Amino acid sequence: MPRYRITLAYDGTDFLGWQRQREGGRTVQGELEQALARLPGGAGVAVVAAGRTDAGVHALGQVAAFDLPREAEPAELLRALNGLLPRDVRVLEAALAPAGFHPRRSAVGKLYRYELDFGGVPLPQRRLYAAWIPWVLEEQAVQAAAALYPGRRDFAAIASKGGSVKTTVRTVMRSQALLSGSTLVYETEADGFLRKMVRSMVGGLVAAGRGASSVEELARALERGDRRAWPAPAPACGLTLVRVDYPVLG
Amino acid sequence: MPRYRITLAYDGTDFLGWQRQREGGRTVQGELEQALARLPGGAGVAVVAAGRTDAGVHALGQVAAFDLPREAEPAELLRALNGLLPRDVRVLEAALAPAGFHPRRSAVGKLYRYELDFGGVPLPQRRLYAAWIPWVLEEQAVQAAAALYPGRRDFAAIASKGGSVKTTVRTVMRSQALLSGSTLVYETEADGFLRKMVRSMVGGLVAAGRGASSVEELARALERGDRRAWPAPAPACGLTLVRVDYPVLG
Repeated sequence: MPRYRITLAYDGTDFLGWQRQREGGRTVQGELEQALARLPGGAGVAVVAAGRTDAGVHALGQVAAFDLPREAEPAELLRALNGLLPRDVRVLEAALAPAGFHPRRSAVGKLYRYELDFGGVPLPQRRLYAAWIPWVLEEQAVQAAAALYPGRRDFAAIASKGGSVKTTVRTVMRSQALLSGSTLVYETEADGFLRKMVRSMVGGLVAAGRGASSVEELARALERGDRRAWPAPAPACGLTLVRVDYPVLG
Repeated sequence: MPRYRITLAYDGTDFLGWQRQREGGRTVQGELEQALARLPGGAGVAVVAAGRTDAGVHALGQVAAFDLPREAEPAELLRALNGLLPRDVRVLEAALAPAGFHPRRSAVGKLYRYELDFGGVPLPQRRLYAAWIPWVLEEQAVQAAAALYPGRRDFAAIASKGGSVKTTVRTVMRSQALLSGSTLVYETEADGFLRKMVRSMVGGLVAAGRGASSVEELARALERGDRRAWPAPAPACGLTLVRVDYPVLG
């Protein structure tokens, strides 16, 4: 059965997240599977994604895969799916995937972006795609907090409770904060992220930037894996899954 | 009675436009007057705006004014209104206005921005703030069309039918198209705009850019005031009222 790989953009605002819910409700996976079900041979086909984004989280380069019991021209599949999908989900690319390709297990890295506006009055046009806080952020403290994350380390302090992961060790390759005017754009790349990890990383930047936590306190909490000493995660709407990376061959 | 001037940003997506409708429905004026009505002395107060934006049109710098039968600290008025308004409308500034100030009649200029993405697949995150067309735009033709508008001229060809304006003569001070990748950002400044004028100007750019009309045909239609020869206006969602200018004294 041929396997297809698609790259997706979506506006997470009106979704309960990626994953289909037992109780129903609108999810990206659900919309995709419903669209596929209307294509020849697509009934009952399950779609797997690289990242199970939470409610309100956006994507510019989510990667998903599914098996179809027939050969389809990828460009045609793209057109057909975009014709059936709601406007807040778009297939940007479609391709035949190598046998054994798994969007999550085959991934070697992911890039997330977080946008946040601070101070002043929140702009209505940004409310769905950027978080907003009333406090002004101090740049040096934000940069010092961003410098805490890179490297291979145990992120138990910012792992969501009740997760089913085997290990909370991850390698963060990039942790870059750009402050410009009253906007913070934060980008981070890792070999994988724990649930709510990026939002908790941003929670750390915000706590440091507004002076609610010192960078030393954050460093200590991270080192000790002390979840209770870690600031609250930043809101979902500021987060976007930008890209998923795969080995060049594979 | 003191008069107040406020600068507003709003996301036009869920509004029927600026102006209160006899038949009801959500409008920016309506939301503001409802919020004012909950403040002391604000019941029945009418709000006037510089530009009566249509349904779906956004604002970053709309200017409005109203009289309150009491003195209020502008900063407090701003906070109180933002506490009562829905999240898709925000008061960015509030000030006491000089006597006789009228947001529309006192204005000497307005700046509008239009954003449009072309070709490829439309990004979900842009769908509310940028128009999208499947055709690729040819830059030289777009620039030549943008060069048709500046100056003092009769814009009867792109005036909406049934308007009640005395004259269709306007002075366009700026008409700048920036093409970058697959995005067109167009900015235009004039002493005033007719209804749907900017969207019709963009309709001209698109028709020229995709080769549906030649720049010569557009120039002729403009000169003759030939409304039927003019391309359709571009969609509302791409349009934003960026700024309204007033004389330095006045």
